[in-house]
Amino acid sequence: MTELPVVVPVDRSGEAALRGRIDGKAKPPGALGEIEALAVELALMTGGARRLDRARLLVFAGDHGLNEEGVSSYPSAVTAAMVATLLAGKASANAFARAVGAEVTVVDAGVDADLAAHPMLVDAKVRRGTRNAAREAALTAAEVDQALARGAAIARAAAEDGVDILAFGEMGIGDSAAAALILHRLAPAPLAECVGRGAGHDDAGLARKLATLERAAARTDATAPLEVLAEFGGLEIIMIAGAVIGAASARRPVLVDGFISSAAALAAIRLVPAARDYCIFSHRSAERGHQVMLQALGARPLLDLSLRLGEGTGALLALPLVRAASALLSEVADLADVLEGRL
Amino acid sequence: MTELPVVVPVDRSGEAALRGRIDGKAKPPGALGEIEALAVELALMTGGARRLDRARLLVFAGDHGLNEEGVSSYPSAVTAAMVATLLAGKASANAFARAVGAEVTVVDAGVDADLAAHPMLVDAKVRRGTRNAAREAALTAAEVDQALARGAAIARAAAEDGVDILAFGEMGIGDSAAAALILHRLAPAPLAECVGRGAGHDDAGLARKLATLERAAARTDATAPLEVLAEFGGLEIIMIAGAVIGAASARRPVLVDGFISSAAALAAIRLVPAARDYCIFSHRSAERGHQVMLQALGARPLLDLSLRLGEGTGALLALPLVRAASALLSEVADLADVLEGRL
Repeated sequence: MTELPVVVPVDRSGEAALRGRIDGKAKPPGALGEIEALAVELALMTGGARRLDRARLLVFAGDHGLNEEGVSSYPSAVTAAMVATLLAGKASANAFARAVGAEVTVVDAGVDADLAAHPMLVDAKVRRGTRNAAREAALTAAEVDQALARGAAIARAAAEDGVDILAFGEMGIGDSAAAALILHRLAPAPLAECVGRGAGHDDAGLARKLATLERAAARTDATAPLEVLAEFGGLEIIMIAGAVIGAASARRPVLVDGFISSAAALAAIRLVPAARDYCIFSHRSAERGHQVMLQALGARPLLDLSLRLGEGTGALLALPLVRAASALLSEVADLADVLEGRL
Repeated sequence: MTELPVVVPVDRSGEAALRGRIDGKAKPPGALGEIEALAVELALMTGGARRLDRARLLVFAGDHGLNEEGVSSYPSAVTAAMVATLLAGKASANAFARAVGAEVTVVDAGVDADLAAHPMLVDAKVRRGTRNAAREAALTAAEVDQALARGAAIARAAAEDGVDILAFGEMGIGDSAAAALILHRLAPAPLAECVGRGAGHDDAGLARKLATLERAAARTDATAPLEVLAEFGGLEIIMIAGAVIGAASARRPVLVDGFISSAAALAAIRLVPAARDYCIFSHRSAERGHQVMLQALGARPLLDLSLRLGEGTGALLALPLVRAASALLSEVADLADVLEGRL
């Protein structure tokens, strides 16, 4: 397979000293709760009190052959329509990105349409949609490799471009079905606990989705990460997994969004365990399987707002908290200086 | 007493139509969870899809005579030292304000020190600290009126200055003791459930604080809001209460911070119930009584990060979520337009 970039695990030897520095700031020790813990993690990730001014959201888009089976309540054509909306700056993710101060780039990982060139669009298309995973493997091993490598390269290019922190989101009708299958095999967890209502199934739609995913799962007993990704797709999920590894290899913090992005993070971490050290879990999604996912990853997310949209919207909402945490070490006075009038 | 500005209750007749508009946006209905509910509330508060670009944090500072009894683990002199830190831009609130894009103004409501003039400081001092509430009423009725009126005027001036959304924070050693007494009488709730560790008491300190507050409570059976505020203070809490009413009268959303600011909001709402309609509760504090407070106010906060610092830090962290919510109505395309290619 393609060589993935090397991720250096975080060196925790400086952790106690960092905690001591934060305890010495002009506030009661521990008074900023989870923000203090986050400040320590960020300093460990980036190797110092790096500012996180420049943030970029990458929205990876792709289609799913599995959608032929009606696993989503929306038709696949909505993927391309929402990519156009993102490029027009009129999706929820664009509005949130403006509200929090983040750039937005859309990556065509595998949309089942020919997309016109656009300054905000990166063409990284591996193929027009995955194959129907209920009948056959969604992707070949080579296609998985290609998606991982392109995702890693895109994230590393962002870091080289001066981006301090990366957020990843997705757009792909049917992607919660693929994410459920990945979670089922990589957590691992019973399939029924991994499958949720996605964009809004009623009870009958949910039962149909579960039945379809049971057929897909019955087709293969793959549990190795690369095989699971090939069996179930999708291209946007795999490319996000590559991007998580790429960002981690460049020591950039990664804001992980909701259920689908977390499935990508799970795959990335199963492939390159040290990538876990660079992941910040933004929020607890309302999608059923996300709780299972967070447990599998040992993650405690920052926000709990019943979000289940994707596009990176939850990651964007967590960005200001992360920026605030990153400012603690470098911008807040020490209590000793305050008490002795040395400001 | 001084006339308080009139607060017009939110007109909820447009609520269903606003929900309909949000359901018609380019996302599955309900997929943005609590952000959607917030978007509706913001539009109701401001009478339309007002942008919330300009945000100002007002940090009200004051000292507490009650601190003579050792209710805090810090001496009163720390209040003035932290005001100097805020004015130097080196407190946690400053760092967070820069991270989220908010202005900071410090208001001297009643610091027990002569503060030099500073461009970021508003001198609204009613007196140098409150009287010791364990022995006598903290303030006179006239002093309470003055603090409320000054707070309201400061908030209204900010609105006239073009500020779209206000956040209030506090700095005052001993203020969690005063807030506990206010909560006890205005919720109402048993005193022991209202008293917490504040800036960091150990068990013995907490027991001493509770014993002192029991003496203060035993001195008076006041339950009327103005009397409760006079009995227990503090000036910064009362001035925040006035500012909540002033901001609400100008139809500006108010970001309420943690335990002490919530006590101020509780007092404001007991005085002017319609002020509740303009309050957004930012976070669930780690301070013990805050849960009681939120229940008394029927509030479900946006964040839960074990914060217990004050200064408005939690309100600042919630600001980007509120800005994102305010962008939903005005900046996100309708699904019908997306599906029919009208972008």
